[in-house]
Amino acid sequence: MRFVNVENMRRWLAAVGPEAAIAGLVDALEKDFARWEQFELRPRVASHTADGVIELMPTTDGVSYGFKFVNGHPSNPARGFQTVTAFGVLADVHNGYPRFEAEMTLLTALRTAATTGLAAKYLAPAGPLRLGMVGAGSQSEFQVLGMRAVRQVESVTVFDVDPAASSKMRANLAKLGIEVRIAESAAAAVAGCNAIITCTADKRNATVLSVDDVAPGTHVTGVGGDCPGKTELDERILDLGPVFVEYTEQTRIEGEIQAKPDDFPVTELWEVITGRREGRTSADQVTIFDSVGFAVEDFCALRYLEQAVEGTGFFEELDLIADPEDPKDLFGMIDLK
Amino acid sequence: MRFVNVENMRRWLAAVGPEAAIAGLVDALEKDFARWEQFELRPRVASHTADGVIELMPTTDGVSYGFKFVNGHPSNPARGFQTVTAFGVLADVHNGYPRFEAEMTLLTALRTAATTGLAAKYLAPAGPLRLGMVGAGSQSEFQVLGMRAVRQVESVTVFDVDPAASSKMRANLAKLGIEVRIAESAAAAVAGCNAIITCTADKRNATVLSVDDVAPGTHVTGVGGDCPGKTELDERILDLGPVFVEYTEQTRIEGEIQAKPDDFPVTELWEVITGRREGRTSADQVTIFDSVGFAVEDFCALRYLEQAVEGTGFFEELDLIADPEDPKDLFGMIDLK
Repeated sequence: MRFVNVENMRRWLAAVGPEAAIAGLVDALEKDFARWEQFELRPRVASHTADGVIELMPTTDGVSYGFKFVNGHPSNPARGFQTVTAFGVLADVHNGYPRFEAEMTLLTALRTAATTGLAAKYLAPAGPLRLGMVGAGSQSEFQVLGMRAVRQVESVTVFDVDPAASSKMRANLAKLGIEVRIAESAAAAVAGCNAIITCTADKRNATVLSVDDVAPGTHVTGVGGDCPGKTELDERILDLGPVFVEYTEQTRIEGEIQAKPDDFPVTELWEVITGRREGRTSADQVTIFDSVGFAVEDFCALRYLEQAVEGTGFFEELDLIADPEDPKDLFGMIDLK
Repeated sequence: MRFVNVENMRRWLAAVGPEAAIAGLVDALEKDFARWEQFELRPRVASHTADGVIELMPTTDGVSYGFKFVNGHPSNPARGFQTVTAFGVLADVHNGYPRFEAEMTLLTALRTAATTGLAAKYLAPAGPLRLGMVGAGSQSEFQVLGMRAVRQVESVTVFDVDPAASSKMRANLAKLGIEVRIAESAAAAVAGCNAIITCTADKRNATVLSVDDVAPGTHVTGVGGDCPGKTELDERILDLGPVFVEYTEQTRIEGEIQAKPDDFPVTELWEVITGRREGRTSADQVTIFDSVGFAVEDFCALRYLEQAVEGTGFFEELDLIADPEDPKDLFGMIDLK
């Protein structure tokens, strides 16, 4: 089995650059969303505790099987840990053998940003984007690159309750020549913007963005609300215009729409990509992408990485599968004294 | 994260010996079954295809979280692959970080055998066992050791449709000084026995053991029936005496009792171990353990192995978790050009 550890992931990302990696992932995601009906779809399998959640996210397209292990622990940063860490595995469906394992803490950030970009490609207003962001944590820089993969981004303004986080985000993106303005409030961060991303980590029903802050024609991406009891948008925002989701069944459990009745109308993103349903229909419409992160995106990201590292030195071999010469002689693998 | 690969698993097993490993696992399982109500219980998450099944089996005791990835592909041996391969991971619940990964193809064989032993400890008739087995595949030798961990085993007789498998089993166990007689039929294999194990791999509803072959007082362990549409016992055997299961909800989907109505009475093994319900109540009673394999057993096996290799050289470190110095600065891990 091939294995991409953290160091090789970093080396690969340094070699291709995060912008190219995310742009490539947007294209890969678009192809997989276009063949959505080939995937086995199910909500993630979550184990909730007081401290956070640990989840398994499996799917298959009938040829490959993939799953991601991912945690979400809002109290982690205060204790020196990442909020979200992850790894994933691909296996061959025909014989069930795992063939590829990779760190996915970085890869999840890439694919979440690429999903934001893919949705914006179909839903954001035409022309350059003025991007307002609430939340400058681990995901924030990636999210900006996700938008830039599909649109010209004229300006980026951010608000975070932690000023150090905003400064970190500004410094990181400055290295890529991207200017980030720091605002004193969420309302100030999104004022005059036509694209908004909320990406905070509180595990509770918070309101980091008010309905009054959303101007006509804005595309709103809600990234941080992704657990039962964890939302970030003023629920009235969801009434401003059409709401788009990845996989309805999961998003009703985890997304911003958990604040709404079970029959609250939504459109799945793949339906827009395949032309079955409409995306944005007018320039002054508010569109909302209620992003929670779905298994198909992780599957796609793992396959993308698997192919990207093929023929490079950015992986090692892992001795994970006991494979005796006679498949019925597993016991024979034990050296008896 | 610590990682036990196949080679280290083999080295550990060679060092402790498979009999001691299984005996230790029986004790560990007994302790975990005794605290059954502390575990999060859910049926495994299965992805079925024409070729086989790939499953994730998660559980947690509130302190540790564990899951196993495992496949089941009956057509694999004919193509030179293992029917079942597996690996597993333990994580800390408090922060969601994975801490231990191990090959579980061998470990699953050990824990399945240990579970057979644990059930037999409480359910098999008193005194020495005469063991009749149907199926001499990958699991067979381990199963014999599982029984020997809890009882004196006077004799072992086996039948397999593949004579080479029976010969392989006999040769393997001869190295441990255990004599295996090869029978010409399932009926002949179990004649005169007071303990029967069926362990075959066909993915269909087969009947590898007839009700007429089961003598009064016998303890029957059905190991191979563990998937929807995959059973091995004449269903009338289930009416001969009380049926014991690991976790009712999962066994109704996967076990021999899928042939029975949803209200078919069963006893969970942990209830017997904790003294809540009766096990065997008379010497001439037939008892049936409808084994399918449950997540708590894998969790227990992973923790057992984790502790067993502590302080040894039988593991390596895996660089799986991206852990930046500033937990909010994941992006800072990327070296920008």
